[in-house]
Amino acid sequence: MSKTESFLLSSLTDENKFNTTQELIEWVESRNREISVKLEKIAFNKMSGWYFDNKTGNLKHKSGQFFSIEGIRVNTNWGETNTWSQPIINQPEIGFLGFITKEFNGILYFLIQAKIEPGNVNNVQLSPTLQATKSNYTQVHKGKKPAYLEYFQDRINNEVLLDQLQSEQGARFLKKRNRNIIIKVNSDLPVYEDFKWVTLKQIKDLIGMDNKVNMDTRTVISGIPFGNYKSEIINFYKTIEGDLHKNNVSSKMLASELDNETSLNSIDDIISWFTELKTRFELNIESIPLNSVDNWIKTDYDIRHEEGKFFKVIGVNVSISNREVVNWHQPLIEPAQKGLCAFIVKEIKGVYHFLVQAKLECGNFDTLEMAPTVQCLTGNYLNEGSLSNLPFLNYVLSSTKHQIIFDTLQSEEGGRFYREQNRNLIILAQDDFDQNVPDNYIWMTLNQIKSFIKFNNYLNIQARSLIAAISFK
Amino acid sequence: MSKTESFLLSSLTDENKFNTTQELIEWVESRNREISVKLEKIAFNKMSGWYFDNKTGNLKHKSGQFFSIEGIRVNTNWGETNTWSQPIINQPEIGFLGFITKEFNGILYFLIQAKIEPGNVNNVQLSPTLQATKSNYTQVHKGKKPAYLEYFQDRINNEVLLDQLQSEQGARFLKKRNRNIIIKVNSDLPVYEDFKWVTLKQIKDLIGMDNKVNMDTRTVISGIPFGNYKSEIINFYKTIEGDLHKNNVSSKMLASELDNETSLNSIDDIISWFTELKTRFELNIESIPLNSVDNWIKTDYDIRHEEGKFFKVIGVNVSISNREVVNWHQPLIEPAQKGLCAFIVKEIKGVYHFLVQAKLECGNFDTLEMAPTVQCLTGNYLNEGSLSNLPFLNYVLSSTKHQIIFDTLQSEEGGRFYREQNRNLIILAQDDFDQNVPDNYIWMTLNQIKSFIKFNNYLNIQARSLIAAISFK
Repeated sequence: MSKTESFLLSSLTDENKFNTTQELIEWVESRNREISVKLEKIAFNKMSGWYFDNKTGNLKHKSGQFFSIEGIRVNTNWGETNTWSQPIINQPEIGFLGFITKEFNGILYFLIQAKIEPGNVNNVQLSPTLQATKSNYTQVHKGKKPAYLEYFQDRINNEVLLDQLQSEQGARFLKKRNRNIIIKVNSDLPVYEDFKWVTLKQIKDLIGMDNKVNMDTRTVISGIPFGNYKSEIINFYKTIEGDLHKNNVSSKMLASELDNETSLNSIDDIISWFTELKTRFELNIESIPLNSVDNWIKTDYDIRHEEGKFFKVIGVNVSISNREVVNWHQPLIEPAQKGLCAFIVKEIKGVYHFLVQAKLECGNFDTLEMAPTVQCLTGNYLNEGSLSNLPFLNYVLSSTKHQIIFDTLQSEEGGRFYREQNRNLIILAQDDFDQNVPDNYIWMTLNQIKSFIKFNNYLNIQARSLIAAISFK
Repeated sequence: MSKTESFLLSSLTDENKFNTTQELIEWVESRNREISVKLEKIAFNKMSGWYFDNKTGNLKHKSGQFFSIEGIRVNTNWGETNTWSQPIINQPEIGFLGFITKEFNGILYFLIQAKIEPGNVNNVQLSPTLQATKSNYTQVHKGKKPAYLEYFQDRINNEVLLDQLQSEQGARFLKKRNRNIIIKVNSDLPVYEDFKWVTLKQIKDLIGMDNKVNMDTRTVISGIPFGNYKSEIINFYKTIEGDLHKNNVSSKMLASELDNETSLNSIDDIISWFTELKTRFELNIESIPLNSVDNWIKTDYDIRHEEGKFFKVIGVNVSISNREVVNWHQPLIEPAQKGLCAFIVKEIKGVYHFLVQAKLECGNFDTLEMAPTVQCLTGNYLNEGSLSNLPFLNYVLSSTKHQIIFDTLQSEEGGRFYREQNRNLIILAQDDFDQNVPDNYIWMTLNQIKSFIKFNNYLNIQARSLIAAISFK
């Protein structure tokens, strides 16, 4: 284990010199009480700053900043629907999702932010120290400088502990990626209002509850490696009626990432499996004007699929009152149904293996990413009580209480998505669960997953979000 | 070291039960004598099967197969020229570059092919067992089935030793990738005319000579890992007036890939360096009609840059006579100048470190790839004896005989490029060579390079070609 890994893992401790987890929960709740967020759906032509381009019908901001809603035409030999067109969010610049950490008494603490995002179901969630677009952090437009930005720019005095490019939702974003970064600051630094020092352990405890930790936090911490441990106990956090229960999944091993003896497939086997699928499946994307997208209807208030599937593009008027009132308009994406993301985990050769799916989504940077065993909009698959054809969905939904080792609602990014929450599940497979799986699925150990996360565009955001929940002792 | 690695490395031996290296050289020479290749530059309108699309001016084949020459417009904040347009080869399907290997008396042998490619300076070079486009290997058009294809399709009886997606020239191809694969066949199999069993050692010896081993062979073998060795001797092969000399670079170590003690930068440091550069530099590519490309001139016989720079697109009439005559027409790319690819290597902390450059090329799949220390068309940089501004080029060109540990001419792919050969150099830095380098350069150990090769689109083809030359004892 490297020095960097040791630093990061020092934070998986029950010790704490700042706030208890209960105090953190109360802090978020009190921030929620102090702040009033009004969100009103408005007609597109009432949105100030945003307009539909005359020629293409693309929805854009007048400054050319932020993001735009455009059209794409998709051709693929994956799945049953091989060609379609759809609206998609285009935000080509790489943003920053960054944590500042600092060592106090040998333990690393993360500087977390209680942040309002307009689309959040509960307004305030816990976010990384810095969430900044490239325009923010390069300060090209001289806007308000994001808090703590200067620490991320000062590479002389601060140490980089993690620094990866990671993808976002491939069904919604066109090849979007963010820089996920954790730095360690050695000097003293101010703790502004809305920021607190927390341990990694506390972040993971809070991920065990519904909608407390935002997507950006989850993706950054999902990249923290566990090192080459053996015989470690994996902890999951299970929410039952709002209480946090640690579900200690006996003493199963966290296999060494390079130890082919304890994993069903080697890293090279997994690379070969993925290479074969990337060779077999093609994804061709063509940018088209938003007003040329087929089967989608534009009304005064939304752009939606004619069958009400997938999602709607809406316009909102946001008002946030704290001491002062801030007001703006922006488009948001409203999901048509609830979603479900689930990993099935099975003990193989004495080690937990995760059933990973290779999944093609139209906005993927490189055709396929590794996804949870099940990732779907449940409404699309569960029609009137009939069994689904989607592999493993029925198994997940019919699993017993004892098999469920993680079950929470987690929010997608509230800056782009309107009250979107997905059920996140980790299910322990019964002994008779078939080890042979369809050819776009493969069994991977947790440390193998962590190895692939290091290199960009392997694990998708839904998979990383689930992996972020896992702790060990 | 894994079992797979052991298999592959068993082939780095001086033993041989089939042919001596001298016999292999004579075999290629005799194939060259037996075969007559006529290559005639012809006017585009004389090319049968190929046409310029009326609307776009793109150069395409009537079948829709093979490849096309299209236009792209490039916008980037990299380098001094930030916007340009150019012709580019579009060949979106992923092809197969595959070696069959087989064990005889505990040593793994590679089934190599003496293959004619029309653009080769010397017609026949040594190629992988299988070079096939997706149309070839999926047999959608029922053409002649490539020899040995069935072994690559039979995953039950044959073992995969290496299976990676690797990029090709980013300045010439639009996001092209091939599947680089090595399989081990356990059954008996026929050895057809034009094929022979050779050791990995022999392939590496032959890379030490000018234009013997084709680009496709070099890329496949570059992915073979050396395992986690310490204290191994690195061998380079140096050509002086046609003779092969093994240049045993004393007993420098081949550092363990995970051993941060012996490398200047950790894998995580390198990922962070690359993440920062990918965040900072942008590459936006727009497909445009070939007839809208600025500053390029189309004549009856070629499409060329108005200043004669870069390359020309030409049409050729190919006739190959062996026992029967085969004839076809196709476009080729003719380079405007000779190229140079060089790694500078320096001993740091007792281990050889390679000076790797992050380089943006317009056809790159993901903005930047890791390139040799110097990669250039020499004519563009060396004007009338003046010193070049290109980092490290002067150092490479003025290095002494004792510093040159590898110096050969290697051909680019003869199926697309017209008599293109680049000088491949590995230079040992003097002790006073500055360890501090510009920020798009980083020092990496050989095993770190091998680790990144595993994951797609890290090392570019020029870097991999040089890495393929390195052996150890």
